[in-house]
Amino acid sequence: MNKRKIISVLGKIILTEVLLMIPALLVSFIYQDGDAGVFLITMIVSGILGGACCLVKQSDQRMSSRDGYFIVAAAWIVVCLIGAIPLYLGGGFHSYFNALFEIVSGFTTTGASVLARPEDLGHGVLFWRSFTHWIGGMGVLVFVLMVMPMENDNSMHLVRAEVPGPTAGKLVPRMRTTSMILYGIYGIMTLVLIIILKILGMSFFDSFCLAFGTAGTGGFAVTGAGIAAYDSLAIEITLGIFMLLFGVNFSVYHLLMLRKVKEIFSMEEVKVYFGVVAVATLSIACNVIRMAGGFGNALRQAFFQVSSIITTTGFSTVDYDLWPEFSKHVLVLLMIIGACAGSTGGGLKISRVIILVKSFVLEIRQIINPKEIVTVRLNGKPVDKKTLGSTRIYAAAYLILICVFTLVVSLDGFDLTTNLTAVLSCFNNIGPGLNMVGPVQNFSIYSDWAQVVLSIAMLTGRLEIFPMFLLLARSAHDK
Amino acid sequence: MNKRKIISVLGKIILTEVLLMIPALLVSFIYQDGDAGVFLITMIVSGILGGACCLVKQSDQRMSSRDGYFIVAAAWIVVCLIGAIPLYLGGGFHSYFNALFEIVSGFTTTGASVLARPEDLGHGVLFWRSFTHWIGGMGVLVFVLMVMPMENDNSMHLVRAEVPGPTAGKLVPRMRTTSMILYGIYGIMTLVLIIILKILGMSFFDSFCLAFGTAGTGGFAVTGAGIAAYDSLAIEITLGIFMLLFGVNFSVYHLLMLRKVKEIFSMEEVKVYFGVVAVATLSIACNVIRMAGGFGNALRQAFFQVSSIITTTGFSTVDYDLWPEFSKHVLVLLMIIGACAGSTGGGLKISRVIILVKSFVLEIRQIINPKEIVTVRLNGKPVDKKTLGSTRIYAAAYLILICVFTLVVSLDGFDLTTNLTAVLSCFNNIGPGLNMVGPVQNFSIYSDWAQVVLSIAMLTGRLEIFPMFLLLARSAHDK
Repeated sequence: MNKRKIISVLGKIILTEVLLMIPALLVSFIYQDGDAGVFLITMIVSGILGGACCLVKQSDQRMSSRDGYFIVAAAWIVVCLIGAIPLYLGGGFHSYFNALFEIVSGFTTTGASVLARPEDLGHGVLFWRSFTHWIGGMGVLVFVLMVMPMENDNSMHLVRAEVPGPTAGKLVPRMRTTSMILYGIYGIMTLVLIIILKILGMSFFDSFCLAFGTAGTGGFAVTGAGIAAYDSLAIEITLGIFMLLFGVNFSVYHLLMLRKVKEIFSMEEVKVYFGVVAVATLSIACNVIRMAGGFGNALRQAFFQVSSIITTTGFSTVDYDLWPEFSKHVLVLLMIIGACAGSTGGGLKISRVIILVKSFVLEIRQIINPKEIVTVRLNGKPVDKKTLGSTRIYAAAYLILICVFTLVVSLDGFDLTTNLTAVLSCFNNIGPGLNMVGPVQNFSIYSDWAQVVLSIAMLTGRLEIFPMFLLLARSAHDK
Repeated sequence: MNKRKIISVLGKIILTEVLLMIPALLVSFIYQDGDAGVFLITMIVSGILGGACCLVKQSDQRMSSRDGYFIVAAAWIVVCLIGAIPLYLGGGFHSYFNALFEIVSGFTTTGASVLARPEDLGHGVLFWRSFTHWIGGMGVLVFVLMVMPMENDNSMHLVRAEVPGPTAGKLVPRMRTTSMILYGIYGIMTLVLIIILKILGMSFFDSFCLAFGTAGTGGFAVTGAGIAAYDSLAIEITLGIFMLLFGVNFSVYHLLMLRKVKEIFSMEEVKVYFGVVAVATLSIACNVIRMAGGFGNALRQAFFQVSSIITTTGFSTVDYDLWPEFSKHVLVLLMIIGACAGSTGGGLKISRVIILVKSFVLEIRQIINPKEIVTVRLNGKPVDKKTLGSTRIYAAAYLILICVFTLVVSLDGFDLTTNLTAVLSCFNNIGPGLNMVGPVQNFSIYSDWAQVVLSIAMLTGRLEIFPMFLLLARSAHDK
């Protein structure tokens, strides 16, 4: 492994994180919340550390795809370890691990919180907490690629390891341009949302924080009451629509920029995504009609919650834990499915679900006609064998990991529904679960070590399993 | 599709079932429970039906593997539909679907019951209910092959579709001989168990019924109190050990017959199986030590329950639903894992779990060294690509089906823990679940239609997914 290279890339990443803390520092200054010192200390210490790493003389050797996976996993861990410092120093968290859980939840866009009243935090820290959603949503490494120049081949490996979905989202041949396009689209959409929220009567601070939470499909709000606090139909519908939009494969927006509308309509994943949203919304609406007092209200609540869960954002306007069991089961299913590949959302991803279902159907067709040559197709194109194989392995690994994580956190003594949905929620980067981790509860019920386990689950889910395991694999250190 | 062939094979199967009802008829006569007429009517009507099917003139055309899958699925459904008649006519079930659930639970060796007090049934019906475990455990079709001659090629397709596990358990080239060896071993082991139970003080009737339940890894007892009713340490340990033995791949016993002891020790699946049992037993024992009042008692309870759940039998001596959450989570994990392939147990099967875990580890090694050629090995031999592919598809299909079944039964309004463990329990042919379907509860809480859904889940799980779906696939009717 190319150690010098890795250290120097990690240095660049740390320096980028220092830059990313500047807005939070400014917010701290503006609101005079007394946390500016906390940010300054963190930035100075990390700046020195990052600078030192960058000074390591690197060889010209190329990065391998394995180095890419390794760097991505290491980078995310380092970024979270540093990102948790302002939260811990700012007070409000009873231990560093507590703060770490919160910031891992931020960067991985999970949105699960250990705080009952986030409003007790200073504005700077609150801003930083929400801002991590925005960076984590599109990708820390993708952001680094944009601000720090790197060889194209090397950056491809990083993007492949960080951007979710069965295939890497390469929009244009040059990776730096790709990351600029992605962040460009992302930034403009976020800005539009901020403006709309401001117009709808939200404060400047709140519209920034909630727009970050929506864009990254994260789910941190600024108060314990969440979205319900605004009590505004317009805000609810706006957020519902924008969450859905951020859960769409970003190549759709790129195609839109290029005016290739026809190609968009051939994208199976997007069609299935909206189909699932429609079916889930309608079935939940019918199921909660009595509780919501009329179909209109039921539809509104169902749409917001479906949009929030399938995109793995995790906002809520009602306590869906009180909904009838069928609706709750639908939500758990949506948690597993997740949003489109190449979006800011988490979960198994629609395209993987499509590939898995089609594989199954084709296996049956193969039994019926053993001589027929069957191929799994996505968006009309045949899926190559490698992707097919790793998608199936991914599903198996997913099943195994959910079981293992649930078993481990069960040592804290909560019931199966709580543990399973907590793990599903963390692994798929959603936020709330059911029962003791329902939408009006928080994750402070879990002990410190269980929070560390859940933090690992969030990172493993966000990076789609393999990078985290590569980091653990001993052989990665051998060579 | 070879329709005439299929009908004639189904005829043979129905006639075999009529033969299989004879012991229950005799029991009814002996105990004078008044149900003899019920059995006679069922046997006469089915005899006429089966005879008529056999009369269909069949072509000499060979069966395809697809016909094999089709016949197996159709046969199991027909066998259950007929098998439920004596239960329904005998009274004690409030509807035919209720009785159908019970008999599907019998044949699939699930052991989930809708009865709070099975002791209210007549002896003949009780015997029939337990006897279906014995037949279903080793396989209805495997039994048919033994008593009715069939071409070797054709029978191979049937066995492949019915015997659980990623590869067909072909012991000797001739399938008829294979099925005789399997039923021979099975019969002798069952007989030994019956004798031991009788010696330990059980009544003749009880020892037969419980031996059937143990051998088929079914789990029906003869009273609502189950195994706890005997309150005997010796019986508990005997059943614990025998359940484990019936969960072992039967080729082990065949190798034992051939005195190939060395080959047995090279069987990875068996080693992993006993390893999992040991680890699970110890961790549960440590976890329940306070509740059980001492380590000895804890170990005893843990061993019995682990053995019962991993082999998917479903007997219980304690209400494990009251155990600490960690122990319950371990049991749920064991439900998913299941017993060895080629045994009478259900679940995902140890060999599949091994293949899945190895695939995952190798995928990571492949990323580390892209040039290395990696092969998944089981028992020292490389697993062929076809098996590998279908195992991964199986895992994906498993995940999807568990989600779908859980969602559908959630319409009855029970909580996630109940529904999920009910589906896991039915799909993996275990019996009890947690919460409302815990070991001291029963499945009568579910509505009739949910019971039908759970019956489908049991059949789908017992036949390992594909045959049931082939039956549904429209194209199966097209050609």
